[in-house]
Amino acid sequence: MNPTIALLTAHRSIRKFTDQPIDPDLFEQLVLAGQAAASSSFMQAATIVRVTDPVKRAELAHLANDQPYVAAAAEFLVICADLHRAVQCCEQQGETARPDYTEQMIIATVDAALMAQNIVVAAESAGLGICYIGALRNKPDAVAALLDLPDHAYAVFGLCLGWPDQYPEVKPRLPVDLVLHENSYRPDLDSTALAAYDAQIKDYYATRTNNQKSQTWSAQMAGLLSREARPHMLGFLRERGLMQK
Amino acid sequence: MNPTIALLTAHRSIRKFTDQPIDPDLFEQLVLAGQAAASSSFMQAATIVRVTDPVKRAELAHLANDQPYVAAAAEFLVICADLHRAVQCCEQQGETARPDYTEQMIIATVDAALMAQNIVVAAESAGLGICYIGALRNKPDAVAALLDLPDHAYAVFGLCLGWPDQYPEVKPRLPVDLVLHENSYRPDLDSTALAAYDAQIKDYYATRTNNQKSQTWSAQMAGLLSREARPHMLGFLRERGLMQK
Repeated sequence: MNPTIALLTAHRSIRKFTDQPIDPDLFEQLVLAGQAAASSSFMQAATIVRVTDPVKRAELAHLANDQPYVAAAAEFLVICADLHRAVQCCEQQGETARPDYTEQMIIATVDAALMAQNIVVAAESAGLGICYIGALRNKPDAVAALLDLPDHAYAVFGLCLGWPDQYPEVKPRLPVDLVLHENSYRPDLDSTALAAYDAQIKDYYATRTNNQKSQTWSAQMAGLLSREARPHMLGFLRERGLMQK
Repeated sequence: MNPTIALLTAHRSIRKFTDQPIDPDLFEQLVLAGQAAASSSFMQAATIVRVTDPVKRAELAHLANDQPYVAAAAEFLVICADLHRAVQCCEQQGETARPDYTEQMIIATVDAALMAQNIVVAAESAGLGICYIGALRNKPDAVAALLDLPDHAYAVFGLCLGWPDQYPEVKPRLPVDLVLHENSYRPDLDSTALAAYDAQIKDYYATRTNNQKSQTWSAQMAGLLSREARPHMLGFLRERGLMQK
């Protein structure tokens, strides 16, 4: 396993950071690494809003389910799926833009995710810790208003970056055989493998350093999938001019 | 710039591969690196269908706009956004699953993208080349049928992996200032910066080794945004039981 692959497999979210800032040169490298990710049709349909204003940070931390590290991390980036820039180019060329297809929303969301993951890998390679903040989608309209996002853009998630002040354990992933299929999707879950994984995750949650609890992965999934999931998202995206057809 | 960040910024798609296979140990490391990516609510809502059957490979290459490297690459992975596994867990726990929210589709799509990008970084760190194949979304129903994808799963894109047999130039990205905003989104494109970038991209396309053409980035965006974009996607996803509300 080479050092980069070892780094990737050692990922865990960091939610407690020291006060040390990120050097501007390193920060710029993280952004360049993010931009270097592949982009569908080279649309580069992702934009970063770096939030340095402490008032906006505090408000974002509140909107994101009161997660304090959103305010406390050295950097907080709002990663936006963004078709606005390409729409502007289109209009400047005298063409009518049609960014309202579901496909365009997928393109922009994937571009944002690939860019973010490259930033994450770059950050971790420099010793920084990161935490994705999906909870920005709790109040996506308030986030969009706070950051003046234009139509055809939305905040997919936030990203906390900073120097780690905690060293949590790596969370065990699903057995490879459940995630890697060959030639055809195997629809039936291997119940023996799942039971073993449930036991492993239960042990991980019970013994990890922070936020111990008693739960299997299956029970966690049942809790997540059986309830409403941000039911405002479809309406919100349509109001942004996205995913209308 | 450390070696990992240098690797990330050196990315370019590879579309011509040698016949050399990928060693099974390395292949497994790529999958483990993919699984190690962050996952929203730890749902791990992504599945890989590795396509080794040459008949299925040829069919996928055809479905993906006849891109020959889909058939020729050492490995071809279909990266699926997949809620089926979590739905099964939910049902086995006696709960009714509700995977049809747009939010769940975003979670699974982002999980798939983060996993894929980690696989890409791991692959490139070992000297492999990669190419994302978004054109699997040209005929997503045929792809789903070919790979027996269950409801609540769809192929977000494919990924070609192999040993490079070409060394294309790195494609210049947008100026950082257009992509990185601070505290508020700047809605007006900096026309001077855009014009300089258009000239840079036009020069890149005119002088690169393969597939030379004469086009600015703005003109490329106008072409992309002014036409229909896979108008079947919304109906397709709804048929898969996704994004119904």
